[in-house]
Amino acid sequence: MPSRFYAPDLDTAAGSARLPEDEAAHLTRVLRLGIGADVCVFDGRGGEWRAVVRHAGRDGVELQLGMPVTPAPERRVFVTLVLTVLKGDHMDVVVRDAVALGVGAIQPVVSERAEVGLVRLLRSRRAERWQRIAIASAKQCGRAVVPDVATPVGFEAWLASPGNAVRYLLAEPTVDTPVTKVQDLPPPTAAAVLTGPEGGWTPTEVTAACAAGARPVRLGRRTLRAETAPLVALAALGVVWDDL
Amino acid sequence: MPSRFYAPDLDTAAGSARLPEDEAAHLTRVLRLGIGADVCVFDGRGGEWRAVVRHAGRDGVELQLGMPVTPAPERRVFVTLVLTVLKGDHMDVVVRDAVALGVGAIQPVVSERAEVGLVRLLRSRRAERWQRIAIASAKQCGRAVVPDVATPVGFEAWLASPGNAVRYLLAEPTVDTPVTKVQDLPPPTAAAVLTGPEGGWTPTEVTAACAAGARPVRLGRRTLRAETAPLVALAALGVVWDDL
Repeated sequence: MPSRFYAPDLDTAAGSARLPEDEAAHLTRVLRLGIGADVCVFDGRGGEWRAVVRHAGRDGVELQLGMPVTPAPERRVFVTLVLTVLKGDHMDVVVRDAVALGVGAIQPVVSERAEVGLVRLLRSRRAERWQRIAIASAKQCGRAVVPDVATPVGFEAWLASPGNAVRYLLAEPTVDTPVTKVQDLPPPTAAAVLTGPEGGWTPTEVTAACAAGARPVRLGRRTLRAETAPLVALAALGVVWDDL
Repeated sequence: MPSRFYAPDLDTAAGSARLPEDEAAHLTRVLRLGIGADVCVFDGRGGEWRAVVRHAGRDGVELQLGMPVTPAPERRVFVTLVLTVLKGDHMDVVVRDAVALGVGAIQPVVSERAEVGLVRLLRSRRAERWQRIAIASAKQCGRAVVPDVATPVGFEAWLASPGNAVRYLLAEPTVDTPVTKVQDLPPPTAAAVLTGPEGGWTPTEVTAACAAGARPVRLGRRTLRAETAPLVALAALGVVWDDL
């Protein structure tokens, strides 16, 4: 399998693609490929092609597109992971693995017990970093779609936003609300999976989420870590909906 | 919920427990608890009790047992994770999360592309470290059973060992062998899930595993990282067997 590169601006009409700066550096400096090398290139929206390096220099890398390739299939159910921002590299791991598990989009949110406040988060460049991680993970896992990592918002603001996705609130085993087992969820057209921070949801947040149409869901009877629960949820729903 | 402590030698007849050194330090130095504090204590074999600190000093911590407690339930299917040894902290994360996902036991193995050879591994103290991580994870996730992390063995030696567990070999999406979807596996009494290293199984290993009765199983169509695949497998089998 040739190495895969991401070129969001590739031009199918002209049969060529120019790699973004990061991708060009990956091709020339990390993998040390040059003119004539066989690669794959995808547009981040589901299209992928075999390609040959036509130009590789300090001014960038250009590819000549060949035959289309069938990338790893996308899920039928579009799942948005509404992910409370976690500590440092926990967030990186969740973004990376959620992409490999076929997530449709990631919406970082800041809840009451989140590690960082919204203002500080927006001032930092963490969200840009998460998008770069999503691109790197798509390259590794075989997807030709790069899920969007949205600009972080407050949890209550997200709850108030419109959308037709069926909402599931991941509840801890100890939560004091009637919960549904993940096995009992029928497949919707689109789903939003809400996952909490290290300290868990506050009771007020659980109430607000339920009032905003979210259904509390349980993933087994053991307490999972905040960075593990989102991945177990994506895997479990993929299995239940035969959509992994 | 009071803090939970692990006391493998607790004495139900005498109604008392003496904490091991690590646990005593956790109680007195990390949580700063003392005489009269309410805690929970479990024996690592499924028993758990409320308890009161009766003595806490440099010479150790003693607890007076109270009423039994119902810990997080164990899985009905005993799953052994036959885990090829991964790089540094990847192994720590898999051990930790596998325990929280209800694994029955962990058998580290060294395969051809494993990060480290068996001799060097046995000379190091990594296996002791993994057992400590399993204890810490049992404390956090609510289990009163501490899964055994066995002494590492070579992969071929493990394949040759007897055992009545049904064997599943986790196969990459690109593997050149007929594979079964995880959804199509009926629940056995005991299962062994074989997961490979960062570089994957060699074709010889896949052949040897199949000859030793292992059934190649696929977890979706995207390539998962070596440290993610074991956890997705445990979650997926838990859902398929309604045993999470």
